[in-house]
Amino acid sequence: MRACDLFIDNCTLLCMDASWTIHERGFVAIEGGNILAVGSSDSPEAVWHRGNAKGSFDARGLLALPGFVNAHTHLPMSAFRGAGEDLPDRLRKYLFPLEKRLVNRALVRDASLFTLAEMALSGTTTFADMYYFEDEVARASKKAGLRALLGETVVDFPAPDAEEAYGGIEYARRFIADWKGDKLITPSFAPHAPYTVDAEHLALIAAEAERLDVPVLLHVAEADFEHERFSASHGSVLKYLDTTGILGPRLLAAHMLYVDDQDIELAARRGLAVAHVPASNAKSGRLICPAWRMAKAGIRLGLATDGPISGNGMDMQGVLTIYPKLQKTRERSRDIVSAREALRAATLGGAEALGLGDRTGSLEVGKAADLILADTRDFNLQPVYDWYATVVYGMRPHNVRHVLVDGAWLVRDRRMTGFDQDAVMDRMLGIGEECRASIAEISAAAAAPQGVKA
Amino acid sequence: MRACDLFIDNCTLLCMDASWTIHERGFVAIEGGNILAVGSSDSPEAVWHRGNAKGSFDARGLLALPGFVNAHTHLPMSAFRGAGEDLPDRLRKYLFPLEKRLVNRALVRDASLFTLAEMALSGTTTFADMYYFEDEVARASKKAGLRALLGETVVDFPAPDAEEAYGGIEYARRFIADWKGDKLITPSFAPHAPYTVDAEHLALIAAEAERLDVPVLLHVAEADFEHERFSASHGSVLKYLDTTGILGPRLLAAHMLYVDDQDIELAARRGLAVAHVPASNAKSGRLICPAWRMAKAGIRLGLATDGPISGNGMDMQGVLTIYPKLQKTRERSRDIVSAREALRAATLGGAEALGLGDRTGSLEVGKAADLILADTRDFNLQPVYDWYATVVYGMRPHNVRHVLVDGAWLVRDRRMTGFDQDAVMDRMLGIGEECRASIAEISAAAAAPQGVKA
Repeated sequence: MRACDLFIDNCTLLCMDASWTIHERGFVAIEGGNILAVGSSDSPEAVWHRGNAKGSFDARGLLALPGFVNAHTHLPMSAFRGAGEDLPDRLRKYLFPLEKRLVNRALVRDASLFTLAEMALSGTTTFADMYYFEDEVARASKKAGLRALLGETVVDFPAPDAEEAYGGIEYARRFIADWKGDKLITPSFAPHAPYTVDAEHLALIAAEAERLDVPVLLHVAEADFEHERFSASHGSVLKYLDTTGILGPRLLAAHMLYVDDQDIELAARRGLAVAHVPASNAKSGRLICPAWRMAKAGIRLGLATDGPISGNGMDMQGVLTIYPKLQKTRERSRDIVSAREALRAATLGGAEALGLGDRTGSLEVGKAADLILADTRDFNLQPVYDWYATVVYGMRPHNVRHVLVDGAWLVRDRRMTGFDQDAVMDRMLGIGEECRASIAEISAAAAAPQGVKA
Repeated sequence: MRACDLFIDNCTLLCMDASWTIHERGFVAIEGGNILAVGSSDSPEAVWHRGNAKGSFDARGLLALPGFVNAHTHLPMSAFRGAGEDLPDRLRKYLFPLEKRLVNRALVRDASLFTLAEMALSGTTTFADMYYFEDEVARASKKAGLRALLGETVVDFPAPDAEEAYGGIEYARRFIADWKGDKLITPSFAPHAPYTVDAEHLALIAAEAERLDVPVLLHVAEADFEHERFSASHGSVLKYLDTTGILGPRLLAAHMLYVDDQDIELAARRGLAVAHVPASNAKSGRLICPAWRMAKAGIRLGLATDGPISGNGMDMQGVLTIYPKLQKTRERSRDIVSAREALRAATLGGAEALGLGDRTGSLEVGKAADLILADTRDFNLQPVYDWYATVVYGMRPHNVRHVLVDGAWLVRDRRMTGFDQDAVMDRMLGIGEECRASIAEISAAAAAPQGVKA
């Protein structure tokens, strides 16, 4: 047997493996960033590692589970969180003008670091992001120490980081060339949506993704006008997208609200994955996504917060608790989406959706040591009769005490290890001051009645 | 001017009064448990109080808002939280047998103290509860220091605290006699539901409540079988209840799922109040309550967690964030239930629903000093462009730092002041151990196929 670098001992372990293994008092042995062994603290293997480990950590009273996977985010939008709430057609009337005026490289960097702190401190270890200046998101993520699938955004209009329409494609090529092969970062293309990237460019991106062997991130069937347009032309958004060649195992499709049984069948056949974004969708008054039906059809399904301006809170606990509730409401059945299935979607399901299912998402030998250690002696977590129900319905962000990614401490005693979190907070307070006037101005314009010029 | 007992200075104040007053840097002056003055920290009044206060507290960096009002709970059921999740017909097949076997006076006391800690530490200052041994809930609540409307449960079968069917009525009479006039506790009757209390006894309770001048708590139109039964006999649950004389301003009706426009009109006309329980209802796969429509019809509307076995988390943040989302989803509109309306329902709206709207629910002169002081320098709360959105969508339990009820510290630096919270936690861990075997047995019986005897 090989000695491990770090021996985490005496914690309750939810492994989230195929047989739903739970060790009431268990250990994880980590070597070279990977899980070398996992099991009961009373086993002979535990005894051997306890005696031979290079480092050890007594996790008595803590609960270990795989780190959360947030399958769809826009990190830098924390800069605008809470602005322009409840405005109709917020995306086109409010957000696009706001981004045009305020988004630049420095804001992307600073706001990303901020959001990474919120995510890591609440137990997220892996995420998928799509935004502008995605290389800055990559650098911030690397600094923090999270695992990420990052897509550079492509749109059919001038963007904050590309003067020409579709300039994002070339930006993404450079980004992919720079980051491909990184241990924690997977670079990719992120065409924005079927209504902001035309068929020709979707086909081009599909071909480029194939050539460069990278994933594709795309918003799919989220908006009512998108649904109406492509239903009229092709029967559905999914059927339209199928004509472009973009539907395939490389694709991580966010939202997927306007999908009927035929679309679900098509999605399952093409092998694409879905990022389910329940809290954000509900906050926008949209349809409830048929997530349970998609999972049942064998579609890889992850859970996600969406960006901070859409979903607000960036903790996965907020998504975990609403996901089964909305599905049970949609299907009018309390028996579907059990707590353990919900937790699987927030961990291994998300990892599978991001194409990282062999690397993270469960506590199994050979996988990366990406895990949360949470306090259990807290009033919101006791008593415990069912660990899955406790985590899914009861856990709140503050229960997360330590977090590891690739065997390294990402969060230790509720502090980020990768950067000075107080400086990051101060910078966001400054961004808030800098943005306030512009935000008030754009809010007023967006709220003005149609046809009236301010 | 009178000198105040406590001068809380330099915090942001969300007053939740009729004109939505916000002081970016404000003060609250407290005397004899009440708010003597509230305003800007720069005002002459602030200067005077600052110089004359008997005690002062510099709340720099904190956000003050009225304490949350949880309009429907079953405190002692924390003892069973997380048990028997996802079982069909959980109430009748699982919960009633469980309570029969395990509920006693000591469990009610100890589990109530536990739940009170979870609620107070997350910022709840007032709540409505219905359970057995409600005098123990009253004593626990008094010890903790919360304000409460407490109803002794009445059912048509032998209960843990009454050997005869309807024994709860006599129990409630004694409870009301003992507690009426208490500064913080309002005792009341809590007939369980239209399907567990017959028309004759509902009428009797309505008359007794009138005679004793106390409120009535009742589950209304929650279950499908209840809806089917009373729709067949009377057109709807509400129409049936109207024949018993129970519908009136004294009634706080929880759930109210199966109500159509006629029922809403009837409820508004009778002046009853509603405890809206969105997270618990969704977790049970029920209908989305037409809460927005009821509020629009002028019905007093509070928000609630439900008991810990139904809603699990007892923090009002979890309810606050899901309430607007489910209403927006139900009505397919992002424009309804703004963040400030949602926060009003969780504070002043709840107080009004409990008949305590003149006493608590907003930071206004003459009302009780029931308030939260929350840290704002936290990654889930920044930046701030709209305080209401920040609180409703962003706040999590750990942001709550101090809580006052009636001008006294209920929570100081995240610790209960009224009792030894570590001892209360230890006792719950013991309850968990004691209940585990019984719970496993009853779960197995409830999950067994119909007609099969184990």
